[in-house]
Amino acid sequence: MPEFRQDPITGRWVIIAPGRAGRPWHIGSTRRQASVETCPFCAGNEAMTPPEVWAQRQAHTKANAPGWRLRIVSNKYPALANGGEPTTNSDGFYRSMSALGVHEVIIESPDHVTDMSTLSDPQITDILRAYRARLRILGTDPRWRYLLIYKNQGEHAGATLEHIHSQLTALPTVPRQSLDEISGASKHFAATARCIYCEIRRRELERGERLVAENDRFVALCPFAPRFGYETWLLPKNHAANFAASSDGDITAFGQILRHLLLKFARLFANPPFNYVIHSAPQDDIQSPRYHWHMEILPQLTRAAGFEWGSGMHMNSVAPEDAARLLRDAPV
Amino acid sequence: MPEFRQDPITGRWVIIAPGRAGRPWHIGSTRRQASVETCPFCAGNEAMTPPEVWAQRQAHTKANAPGWRLRIVSNKYPALANGGEPTTNSDGFYRSMSALGVHEVIIESPDHVTDMSTLSDPQITDILRAYRARLRILGTDPRWRYLLIYKNQGEHAGATLEHIHSQLTALPTVPRQSLDEISGASKHFAATARCIYCEIRRRELERGERLVAENDRFVALCPFAPRFGYETWLLPKNHAANFAASSDGDITAFGQILRHLLLKFARLFANPPFNYVIHSAPQDDIQSPRYHWHMEILPQLTRAAGFEWGSGMHMNSVAPEDAARLLRDAPV
Repeated sequence: MPEFRQDPITGRWVIIAPGRAGRPWHIGSTRRQASVETCPFCAGNEAMTPPEVWAQRQAHTKANAPGWRLRIVSNKYPALANGGEPTTNSDGFYRSMSALGVHEVIIESPDHVTDMSTLSDPQITDILRAYRARLRILGTDPRWRYLLIYKNQGEHAGATLEHIHSQLTALPTVPRQSLDEISGASKHFAATARCIYCEIRRRELERGERLVAENDRFVALCPFAPRFGYETWLLPKNHAANFAASSDGDITAFGQILRHLLLKFARLFANPPFNYVIHSAPQDDIQSPRYHWHMEILPQLTRAAGFEWGSGMHMNSVAPEDAARLLRDAPV
Repeated sequence: MPEFRQDPITGRWVIIAPGRAGRPWHIGSTRRQASVETCPFCAGNEAMTPPEVWAQRQAHTKANAPGWRLRIVSNKYPALANGGEPTTNSDGFYRSMSALGVHEVIIESPDHVTDMSTLSDPQITDILRAYRARLRILGTDPRWRYLLIYKNQGEHAGATLEHIHSQLTALPTVPRQSLDEISGASKHFAATARCIYCEIRRRELERGERLVAENDRFVALCPFAPRFGYETWLLPKNHAANFAASSDGDITAFGQILRHLLLKFARLFANPPFNYVIHSAPQDDIQSPRYHWHMEILPQLTRAAGFEWGSGMHMNSVAPEDAARLLRDAPV
């Protein structure tokens, strides 16, 4: 059973999940699945994954058999356990809890696609609809206080299988990164009665120097203080705290700007490794006037190292104004 | 000129240092310098680095010429600028400061050594003495509030050159990781009048399950809530806030336990990529009864990815009790 453990000095929680050590992964291996036979995410190999919990399928096809466009399965090597009693342990100094939660894999194509930027607009819209559908289902379980969607594409972004996929975690507590964002956004709201992300959107559309792209519902910008080179955020133009509440029109517009960005990255860097995360409001505040959902695209062109781990401060060699200009100018 | 920039939402500072983009580095390249001719850190190539600011040298040899055992030079691609006026900028929303500071490279061998574990005890002691000497000098400059030593060994740990080296930064502010540690340690001290690190040392020596090694002055342990698999901390047994105040005897004992650990890692994983950082008290509280200097050794066997960047919480597939047992049992 995995567990959450808290560092007694900093209060930082980690997940200790020994079961994950069995993942099919070796340092420095290229891990290309040359043939469909060995890839657990390819159509036909459904038996190599846990049973699906949700899928987009052709009519009259059976679960866990071909005929799907997108499949969601439990992570075979989960960092969180969906089941069992929540237990907390403390010896008066060290604290831990059972790592209750959900850890799922969204398999985004039945074919052995390795680069999301090669998908069509409808395919990307399908993926975002799947995120929304699964988040809505998990959002009805009162045990989960925070839902996080993330993607690792490329070995340098931490992917352990190259076939395109994302992951979804449901957590029983709100993690630190989200708490930090909410705390800052709440302070700004208390002082100004305005959402800080709406303020950022307004300022960046006005100034333009960190703006990358926009459509009628979304804006893509490089943030003022990015941790990573070419880090880009996608924000809905109208205030919205909860990604899962997006309308079909929102999802289509989001998919268009996301694909536009992925194509720009692919042109500039030849399929760069990247992570993306969807930051949405915690479950107990999904209509927050203070918080604004957004996607952070985090290219992994360099690596966090001793300075970052030792100081908590990132060195970034690309000014966001330069990144935005290059991304704006990149042909699609 | 590099600058510190603050994220307006979370308050997180980053360093934007466009000059570093010119570093001799390419994604996925192996970067082995087959010959001494192309390595800027090998003896004979002193002209390929900025001039040395400190060195251990044979008598009667000249600066920036062979005859050195260890050399400290300014980082050729610094993230911090040592000079110029401290300036702060704010438009009432976004804040930045000139990234005033020192960024140096400690070249730890004149030969093309790539693995610190192959060095002898006296060579490692020499390195730690160099750290101490340089920290003492920089510690006299009232502009620097925090001094951080860190090492990146191996491409997967973010090293951009394989010849063994560490880096030193002097910062005008105390970074977040240190603030978090000090804040937690201060709370514990306020409640108990004891140093929390002394308490950890006491508990871990008593229980033994996370203990890796000890000598008369130092203990090596896997922390209760590690971010990384096989993460190991080295702590002085007696309370000491400031690494730079270490005696010669302390340095010798520290070098012995550090080399012992590096040999164990090398035996277990065949020269694994790792970072280490020396966490010492901020300059304005170097005799703190609350804070305890220590080294964190952070093996980089897997990679922080979307979950970690999106949540701020690390997944670690190695329980520290298992890591400590394997490290204890590894032959040296």
